[in-house]
Amino acid sequence: MTDTLVISVDAMGGDHGPSVVIPAVAQAIASSPANVRFLIHGNEAAIAPELARCKGVLARAEVRHAEKVVGMDEKPAQALRRAKGTSMWNAVESVRDGEAVAALSAGNTGALMAVSKLILRMSADLERPALVASIPHGGGVTTFLDVGANVDCDAERLVEFAVMGEAYHRAAHGAPRPTVGLLNVGSEDMKGHEEVREAHRILREGGLDLDYRGFVEGDDLTRGAVDVVVTDGFTGNVALKAMEGAARFITNELRSALTSNLGASLGAMLARPSLRRFRDRLNPPPAAPLLGLNGIVLKCHGGASARDFAQALKVAAELAQSGFAAEIERNMRRLPAAMSVTAAASADGAAE
Amino acid sequence: MTDTLVISVDAMGGDHGPSVVIPAVAQAIASSPANVRFLIHGNEAAIAPELARCKGVLARAEVRHAEKVVGMDEKPAQALRRAKGTSMWNAVESVRDGEAVAALSAGNTGALMAVSKLILRMSADLERPALVASIPHGGGVTTFLDVGANVDCDAERLVEFAVMGEAYHRAAHGAPRPTVGLLNVGSEDMKGHEEVREAHRILREGGLDLDYRGFVEGDDLTRGAVDVVVTDGFTGNVALKAMEGAARFITNELRSALTSNLGASLGAMLARPSLRRFRDRLNPPPAAPLLGLNGIVLKCHGGASARDFAQALKVAAELAQSGFAAEIERNMRRLPAAMSVTAAASADGAAE
Repeated sequence: MTDTLVISVDAMGGDHGPSVVIPAVAQAIASSPANVRFLIHGNEAAIAPELARCKGVLARAEVRHAEKVVGMDEKPAQALRRAKGTSMWNAVESVRDGEAVAALSAGNTGALMAVSKLILRMSADLERPALVASIPHGGGVTTFLDVGANVDCDAERLVEFAVMGEAYHRAAHGAPRPTVGLLNVGSEDMKGHEEVREAHRILREGGLDLDYRGFVEGDDLTRGAVDVVVTDGFTGNVALKAMEGAARFITNELRSALTSNLGASLGAMLARPSLRRFRDRLNPPPAAPLLGLNGIVLKCHGGASARDFAQALKVAAELAQSGFAAEIERNMRRLPAAMSVTAAASADGAAE
Repeated sequence: MTDTLVISVDAMGGDHGPSVVIPAVAQAIASSPANVRFLIHGNEAAIAPELARCKGVLARAEVRHAEKVVGMDEKPAQALRRAKGTSMWNAVESVRDGEAVAALSAGNTGALMAVSKLILRMSADLERPALVASIPHGGGVTTFLDVGANVDCDAERLVEFAVMGEAYHRAAHGAPRPTVGLLNVGSEDMKGHEEVREAHRILREGGLDLDYRGFVEGDDLTRGAVDVVVTDGFTGNVALKAMEGAARFITNELRSALTSNLGASLGAMLARPSLRRFRDRLNPPPAAPLLGLNGIVLKCHGGASARDFAQALKVAAELAQSGFAAEIERNMRRLPAAMSVTAAASADGAAE
């Protein structure tokens, strides 16, 4: 007999709320094993008509009424003050209380980070949860972190990101031994600032259980040079948004080129199925975990379709079933020793 | 009568050497005023056959023999040790000696930075020259710096980049009053690390002659939100390479989509002229200045065609004719006062 696995869901988040979340739960029920169940948090009056449309959801899901909702445009601090009793708050609280093994929300990212941190507390020594982006490349996806708000990162933070990102990549993509790289401006040992070089030493010599491959550069993100690329939250956020902007610019230019005259328009029409597959290839996976918390919380992007959200629910269940949290903890316990080994090595080097 | 304007050229740099550079000089001669002349540095034996093909070059150009060449793959430190007497070295030396007003090379970027720094010395208080990238957007280009190797940047360095980038954008694009933004992870005053927030204060309150618009984010680079985007050399290098990688990934995916079946291939054939214009729109301008030196040095990209290199020569001449250097100096002289004004403001704030 398999244990029941409960995923807690914020039904009110995202651009579409229950009209996307409830059909997504129905899809997830149809495609997941019978031991996976759902705890749906949200306004009962808003959820009821969707439940009426999606028969059978209540066989494997329970609805918990929440009076309030976190707005998509609220500032995190503002949202936090009135977050208690919202569907988002209750979804995360279910994880803390052991009622669910993971929570998923398509709501306000900043608010979800603040609420999760307050309710679950950080397990790593981070300011805020690390946010993961999944960058598509020719042969799969690159796990890229931190793209969130940990702006000032010392070497130890960067190493924590490596440990967490590697465990996440293995759990989410079934890769037995993901490779890890550290983002820098060149591949030689001497490149980059002090924090990056120190993290490089720890990852290389600290005896962590990681397949660390050294420095990588910005264009390696879409080349798939390594599975996991680690950087501070400032560089990660800028690089991610720069890539998103470049992709948007290029696809806009392509669209206007392909509608600029009759020949191009006819050509685009003939190529339409291929162009649609091309566009799908550029879309990253819909779910991103918030790492470093005492519990699993995932963020689904705000504009997610029911299919996207169902896919995100699947990732949440896989993550909860994997040894994800235990693996992170095991490697994190090696960190103090790794730090002291390289500190001793640096001192030796200085004494020569 | 107009003064003669001499541009010094490294004929041996880039992937193609004289076979691209000499035809480019011929094109530049045909399209530039009669007072623009060229000083070509390189191996006479390699240059002679190209000169034989491009009649008339010697009417407005002089060739100076250089025995040695800097290799495209040499490390900067290694190249520097044996750089004296190379075509690159001599091209930059002509600027120092007042024989030319600007130097252009398509050679090894790191070596050109090291050689230029050694020969011309830095005017600003930078470690290395700042390198500018030009990012295409819907309505023009964004001037983006530093994308080079100034990895550790304090607030004063960032403000220097703003001053130099603004003057360059005006000179290169004829914009009377370019707008300037500082790259950050959000637009609120409290976002980002200390250096960025301090630079923001100086740019906003320091009385510099700049149209400063505040913080911008990674996706603003391709949105054209401001004309000049300023960041440290670490973030700039990563963001630029990440965008280049994304563009390469997307165009590769597009190519394979458009050749995946008969319909798509036929469509691509019909759309070919539009797709070619689309591709040209993505290509950034071929020349980038090295900023912060006592003299004008431009880097042309290594794979440049003769048309690209001729375009880069035109930019070099325009830069030399503009008030570029004087404008930078004028605003740089205001910097100490700007720094002390904001230091006093911070102290006031602390005392409250």
